[in-house]
Formats: sequence, structure tokens, C-alpha cells
Amino acid sequence: MLDLSLLEYAAIGFFAVTGALMAAEKEMDIFGFILLGTVTGIGGGTIRDLLLGDVPIFWVKDPIFIIVCASVSTLVFFAREMPEQRLKLLLWLDAAGLAVFAIRGAHKALAMGTGPTVAIIMGVITATFGGIIRDILGNEIPLILRREIYVTAAFIGVLVYLAGLYTLPPAVAAGLGMIVALLVRVLAIQFHWSLPTYKAKI
Amino acid sequence: MLDLSLLEYAAIGFFAVTGALMAAEKEMDIFGFILLGTVTGIGGGTIRDLLLGDVPIFWVKDPIFIIVCASVSTLVFFAREMPEQRLKLLLWLDAAGLAVFAIRGAHKALAMGTGPTVAIIMGVITATFGGIIRDILGNEIPLILRREIYVTAAFIGVLVYLAGLYTLPPAVAAGLGMIVALLVRVLAIQFHWSLPTYKAKI
Amino acid sequence: MLDLSLLEYAAIGFFAVTGALMAAEKEMDIFGFILLGTVTGIGGGTIRDLLLGDVPIFWVKDPIFIIVCASVSTLVFFAREMPEQRLKLLLWLDAAGLAVFAIRGAHKALAMGTGPTVAIIMGVITATFGGIIRDILGNEIPLILRREIYVTAAFIGVLVYLAGLYTLPPAVAAGLGMIVALLVRVLAIQFHWSLPTYKAKI
Repeated sequence: MLDLSLLEYAAIGFFAVTGALMAAEKEMDIFGFILLGTVTGIGGGTIRDLLLGDVPIFWVKDPIFIIVCASVSTLVFFAREMPEQRLKLLLWLDAAGLAVFAIRGAHKALAMGTGPTVAIIMGVITATFGGIIRDILGNEIPLILRREIYVTAAFIGVLVYLAGLYTLPPAVAAGLGMIVALLVRVLAIQFHWSLPTYKAKI
Repeated sequence: MLDLSLLEYAAIGFFAVTGALMAAEKEMDIFGFILLGTVTGIGGGTIRDLLLGDVPIFWVKDPIFIIVCASVSTLVFFAREMPEQRLKLLLWLDAAGLAVFAIRGAHKALAMGTGPTVAIIMGVITATFGGIIRDILGNEIPLILRREIYVTAAFIGVLVYLAGLYTLPPAVAAGLGMIVALLVRVLAIQFHWSLPTYKAKI
Repeated sequence: MLDLSLLEYAAIGFFAVTGALMAAEKEMDIFGFILLGTVTGIGGGTIRDLLLGDVPIFWVKDPIFIIVCASVSTLVFFAREMPEQRLKLLLWLDAAGLAVFAIRGAHKALAMGTGPTVAIIMGVITATFGGIIRDILGNEIPLILRREIYVTAAFIGVLVYLAGLYTLPPAVAAGLGMIVALLVRVLAIQFHWSLPTYKAKI
């Protein structure tokens, strides 16, 4: 079975940093950083596992995930040279986490025996809910409501992954899905890409 | 055992439409429609099943629910002749979903062996949380905070259903509960009914 | 094993009152009080048990918790002599609930076999998420974002409890942890204590 655990650590770390950056935005103290960073880092995967019935949740079984989140949140708190464009950095790390979690969510759903429909929605939920929880706790407009392609990047990445599984080795399909999701999202941020929206049609 | 599954499809579809209407309000693209429609459609039942410990969740076992949500969301996206009063339509469909989910939530709790107290709160949570998730993701004031009777309609419907179970056939009790909940909510919307609120007493 | 169940009833009642006070703030009707009071009272413990995989949730097994929440919410609704400073009362009861739930969350995690890292984060999540759900449903800025020490009080209380377990009888360690968490939070409210925040360092 394809092992995505190293990538998962990275993605959880990325999301934890975005949570900590939100905590910085809100001028929270160090324990606020740790809570917001940790909840953001593990949020998407937690909801995924709850829905799949894989309890106790992964980070209860293996607390290293919490230590990763708490550590990066603490590092962000003590980073004296925070880049001015915190929101920009948040968007990029969020994009990287989104790409990995989309594939990882779909991959885990398939591994637990679901079909492709559930895998798609599970990938998208895993990818987006960590950020949604972060934005709600930070009292910010959720990223999913922003005009630039966001949910779509997760959808497309998962579709590429699922299609790839028919012909490619799993690791290649997964890598391809992540790269496509990341590219779509990063280009969308950079060039303010958006799909036609509802209003645009009227 | 009483089978409410057909009605559940309908209610999930209604809620999915309200999620898609919210996505239209927010000018999201098609994948945003699908995510918001799906999460709204399956949200209440998902929380119900998590709380009852019935995992994997119903839509993981049976992906047809996701296909229903994704399909109606897509239909709403491509509907060229959207009525002007989108919010009104949202309120009515939300009322229909609320009525069915209240009874369905209580019914499933009873079927899993809980007593009436748990059944009542489970009915109300099932009925209201899909809409709550929709409103939070859409960054709108939750419907439960609006002045018109809302939570109350779900409560009353469930109470009628539970009372009816003592004397009526289950299907009749369930139907009666749904009709009462729907009527109460629809009349409340139409005539701006509200119960005495806290402030009103001072 | 240390039995914290009596204290848990009290803490659930405290949180239910804060939920009902929020419902009063929002001028909800009695069923709104019951829903908001109940969800706030049982919210933190519900998320704790979902994450630990202890389902059905405690209040599904034992509906007395719901009856407690519904009763105190109803009492608050009919209380004619509500103190003027509702927000202040909410803060103090929230502090008491926070202190008990922090220790109770950590205690239950340990009892289910987790290590101290998971116990810490579980204590903090149990302590804070009831209030977070209340603030989100009430459309208010979450308390965790306020400047006064909040998350930190829960963290410190749990750390004192875990440290105490090495040398003290469990009941004493738990009591000490609760008192410290409560003191830290109450003093923070009273004297507007706050830790250095991110911005303060620049």
C-alpha cells in the first residue's frame, strides 16, 4: 500500500503554520498559537477519520502529530523576522496543505474500501476543513468563499489521482494529483484565476 | 420498522438546494456549489450518526446520497431562471428539510435504543445542524438566531411524533410530526410568528 | 479510578447557563434557550468523546446530562431578575466550566490509555470547544480570541494536574489543577491579565 505518511507530516505542519499565522494576525499569546496551530493542522484529517469511523483519531494513537503542530506553532510565535506579507505566506502554505490533504483524504477513503464518489468528497473535505476551522476560529471569511479557485483545486487534484490510478503506479498517480492541485491553486492565487461564478452567467 | 429512507432522500435534496442557493448568493463556482450543497445536505444526518456512533457514516456506506447532493447542486448552478427571491426559496426548502430531519433524527435515535429525551434532542440537532453548517460556511447569521419560530418547529414536530407513537401506527405518527413541524415553520415564516423572547418579558 | 462525574454535572450546568445567557443576549425564545444551552453544555465533552472514539456519546448513554442542560436553560429563561451584567456572569461561569472540563478532559484521555501529550490537547479542547460552539452559534467573536488569558488557563491547569499526578493522590492533583486553572482565568478577567502576544514583540 502506498505510504503517504511523510507527506502527511509535512502537510499537517504547513496547515499548523497557517493556523499560527492566523493567531499572529489576531495577536494571540503562545498558548493561543498552539491551540489554533494544532486544530488547523489536524482538523481536516480528524473530520476525515471521524466520518470513516477510524477512531480513536490518528493523533490520539500517535501524538507525534500534535508535537509537530505545537512545535511549528511555537517556532512561528518566536520567529522575529516574520515576513510582512503574512496573508500571502498563509495562502501558499494553505495551498500546499490543500494539495496533499486532498490526495491523502481520497487515498485513505479508498484504502478503507469506499468507492470513488466517497473518495472524491472525502478528499475535498479533508483538504478544506482544516482551513475552514481555522478561518471560523479566527473569525475570518472562510477561504472557500474567496473568488480564486480553491475548492476546485482540491476536486481537480483528486480527479487526476483517481484517473491516474487506472494506468499509473499509485505513487505516481498520487504525486501527479498533488502537483496538479498545487499548480491549479498557486496559479489561481498568482493570476487571480476564477471559474465562472453563478452571477457571472446572468 | 418504519422506513423513512425515501423521505430522507427528499430532505437531503432540499437541504442541498439551500446550500447551493447560498453558494449562488456568494457567487461561488460550480465546485463551490457542490461542496456547499453536499455538506448542507448531509450535515445534519452526519452529526446525528457521529453522536449515535453509527459509523462509517450513512453516505460513506451508500454514496447515492452524495450523488443526489452533487446533482441538485449542479442543477441549481445551471438553472438559468433562478427565482428572484432566492432567500425566500431557501427558507421554504429549509423548512421542508427541517420537518423531515426532525422526525428522522428522533426516529433513528429510538431505533438505536435511546429513550425519548435523547430522541428529542437528536431530532432537533439533526434538523438544525445542516442549516447551521451552511450558514457558518456562507458567513451568514445562522437561521436559528432569526426571530421567527425555527428551533421550536423542530421541537414541536418531534413531540407530536413521540406522543403519536403511543396511539398511532408509526408511519402516521411520523407523518403527523412532519406536517406539524412544517406547518408551524411555514406559518411562522409567512406571518412572522415568534414566541415571546427573553427581552419581551422585561 | 478517580470519579469526577459530580463535578462534570456542575461544569455542564455552568456551560449550559452560559449558553442560555447567550440566547438571552440574542433574544431567542425558550426552545432556542434549550438548544443553545444544551449544545454549549455538552459540546466540549461531545467532541472529546468523538475524538477518543467513546461512542455512543456520554449523553446518549445517560440522558440526565440533557435534562440538566434543558432545566437550567429553562430556569434562566424564566429568571425575572437577571443581573444586568449578563456578560460578566457568562465569563465567570465559563471560567468555572473551563477549569473543570480541562482537568476532566485530560483525565478521561489518560483513563482511556493516552499519553500526556494527547491528554493535554484533549483537556484544552474539552475546555474550550463548548464555549467556541456557543460563540459561533451566537455569532459572537469567540472568547478564545479575547486578549485576556483563556486558552492559557486551561493549559496551565492541565499541566499542574499532570505534574501533580506524579506525587499527589489523583483527587488532590485534579482539585489543584482545577483551582489553578480557575484562579488564573478569574484573575485574568479581573485584572485584564494577558500574556505577551505576537504583536507586542515587534
